Amino acid sequence: MQTPEDGRTARKRRAIMEAATELFLRKGYPGTSMDEIAATAAVSKQTVYKQFKDKETLFGAIILNASSKVGLFVDAVDALRDTDDLDQDLTGLARRYITTVIRPEGLQLRRLLIAEADRFPEVAADYYRRAPERTIAALAACFQRLAARGLLRLDDPALAAGHFAWLVLATPMDRAMFFGHDDTQTPAELERLADEGVRVFLAAYSAR
Amino acid sequence: MQTPEDGRTARKRRAIMEAATELFLRKGYPGTSMDEIAATAAVSKQTVYKQFKDKETLFGAIILNASSKVGLFVDAVDALRDTDDLDQDLTGLARRYITTVIRPEGLQLRRLLIAEADRFPEVAADYYRRAPERTIAALAACFQRLAARGLLRLDDPALAAGHFAWLVLATPMDRAMFFGHDDTQTPAELERLADEGVRVFLAAYSAR
Repeated sequence: MQTPEDGRTARKRRAIMEAATELFLRKGYPGTSMDEIAATAAVSKQTVYKQFKDKETLFGAIILNASSKVGLFVDAVDALRDTDDLDQDLTGLARRYITTVIRPEGLQLRRLLIAEADRFPEVAADYYRRAPERTIAALAACFQRLAARGLLRLDDPALAAGHFAWLVLATPMDRAMFFGHDDTQTPAELERLADEGVRVFLAAYSAR
Repeated sequence: MQTPEDGRTARKRRAIMEAATELFLRKGYPGTSMDEIAATAAVSKQTVYKQFKDKETLFGAIILNASSKVGLFVDAVDALRDTDDLDQDLTGLARRYITTVIRPEGLQLRRLLIAEADRFPEVAADYYRRAPERTIAALAACFQRLAARGLLRLDDPALAAGHFAWLVLATPMDRAMFFGHDDTQTPAELERLADEGVRVFLAAYSAR
């Protein structure tokens, strides 16, 4: 049973994670102190330490929370297995993929994680398994099923999944890694990149 | 005329840049001091400051030096315009591309630059223009010429250049960003990724 106390604790936990995310992104991990996190979240330092034993634990919780958002996209990938219009539904998936991944906060977290990967190799490796690797695995399983249904032609589903992912995502993601939040990519431009990525993918992998 | 003094200065400058690169990669930019750089390069602190007015200038010089290595690859891209065996020569170019980019030091510099892009937006933007953007521009010009020769079919040479680049590079590069030097990619695996990237690219863009 959820008590009012549990609700307050959950709210505080969320406020601490939001404050820490904002500070880590703006000032970097080493440049952010637990004191500032407590002040920004408007809680006592004691409350911060009660929820997260140290800054590293808090960082890990933020990354874990970010990777948990992959689930919804993985569900959409799984649903594609039963498509009766591959061109249209794969294009829809690619558009959803690019707008899910190419968002300022997600890209900034990615940069933060790359910046801190030497300091926290386990957090980085754990994120990699839970987010990009899980997505590629779901795409590979879906493409294998579509090949079994005679809609795609491929030998290596994981390779095809990587090709799909990077045809769609890589150009805007690469720019964002060097320029931070990159608002030169309009929604229309992202949609075009998704559509063109699907075109190239199907030219190589469609069974028709 | 090059004097013996010039030669000594150039040697010291190189030693300082090599020491700083090694320290930045191992300890991060903020974690490295000019004192340590001088000690590692076996020169006086005064000599370091005579060559580089501050740590930021030294960082910029290292990144500029790294981006200057793009020239040789761009020459190879330009040479492809006159190919009389597109499949074979594009495969050769892709293999060269992947082994040029997917090297431990280059990947670590890329991670360092992504980590420091907020602190040094101009260094990051300058690198982006001199290295990836210049490479993509060279590929685009080459593909446009190959289209004019009737070997490729494309509307948007820059888009096709991005597709080629990321089909070849993205999978090993993405892993390396999260795992640091990633020695699970053997030379044979990199070659296979290059070959498969070319196969997908030509399926979409070959005029045959």
